[in-house]
Amino acid sequence: MTERLQKLVHFITELEKLKLVERQNNILDSNRQENSAEHSWHAALIAVLMQEYAPPGVDVARVVKMLLIHDVVEIDAGDTYLYDDQKKKSVILDEGKAAIRLFGILPSPQGEEYLALWHEFEARITPDAKFAAAIDNLQPLLNYEVTGRATDNPSGPSKSQRAQKKRFIKDVSPQLWDLAEHLIASGVAKGLYKGD
Amino acid sequence: MTERLQKLVHFITELEKLKLVERQNNILDSNRQENSAEHSWHAALIAVLMQEYAPPGVDVARVVKMLLIHDVVEIDAGDTYLYDDQKKKSVILDEGKAAIRLFGILPSPQGEEYLALWHEFEARITPDAKFAAAIDNLQPLLNYEVTGRATDNPSGPSKSQRAQKKRFIKDVSPQLWDLAEHLIASGVAKGLYKGD
Repeated sequence: MTERLQKLVHFITELEKLKLVERQNNILDSNRQENSAEHSWHAALIAVLMQEYAPPGVDVARVVKMLLIHDVVEIDAGDTYLYDDQKKKSVILDEGKAAIRLFGILPSPQGEEYLALWHEFEARITPDAKFAAAIDNLQPLLNYEVTGRATDNPSGPSKSQRAQKKRFIKDVSPQLWDLAEHLIASGVAKGLYKGD
Repeated sequence: MTERLQKLVHFITELEKLKLVERQNNILDSNRQENSAEHSWHAALIAVLMQEYAPPGVDVARVVKMLLIHDVVEIDAGDTYLYDDQKKKSVILDEGKAAIRLFGILPSPQGEEYLALWHEFEARITPDAKFAAAIDNLQPLLNYEVTGRATDNPSGPSKSQRAQKKRFIKDVSPQLWDLAEHLIASGVAKGLYKGD
């Protein structure tokens, strides 16, 4: 094996650890929480399926690549609940260090390329990153539509707190924002989310 | 919501079920088996990472799409162990029916497009499908390199049985075949696979 291939194999085997990172929501049979590897698969596929709602100029293949790697930093830094604003601030440094360690396993130029792609996703400034973030934020609403139970998180964020976190989707795609609003309203109707 | 978007949402929520389909191999902490959603994420990302080993003319973005959907039929038909040749034959009809039901949930033309893409993957004739199959077959060898234990499957397939199933990789990419041979030899040395 060339050194180059050895580095790729090292990174690929390191990715196994993302299957151990638990998120807040459950899977269908409620025996365990969803993990970040499953979430990444689901989000990448949703981006492909929803590409007709991407703004003009978005490179969906690039968005898919972004979504496949967007949570890799959680191998070191863990998952942070969307509504935990305090942890969201403190985890930024850990995630940055994780990105340097993890993408640093890759040979050049992939290491630099994926590090830059992850930073682009996090900054949410480019059209590709905005569409990726919209999909990343829709996936849990879609998941919860079928996996959520009224007993899961009765003191969790209210309808308006959820809408506030997701409102950026409106500027990415009015249709996807309509869907987000519909899913939040449906969650309230089912007793999954608190009303206001 | 338009009828079109409703169909997309129905398909996306149906995808949750792939997170319940267990494969033969474990995840790192050995508390449970890997599922087909995690496997699909890993395989899609490996395709992106290994794209320099794809034969000329392969459309990696298309291969990624193929790998994201390649196991969706297992929602209805379950996972089939690579070395279970008898079940492999009998499951073909179930998988075909599953593809019609599942991709039939999608609006047109995506339904037809994904059904054709899945059949292309299964037929393993086009360069894109061959590269996708090579990656799909490498992923478990890479997973097993870090998750396998000598006690997992002592009466499982031998070195030459494994090599025989994976040998098609040689015609797709000599470098990826070298890697497959290296991983099989490493498994034998660790006592994970029987020698001959």
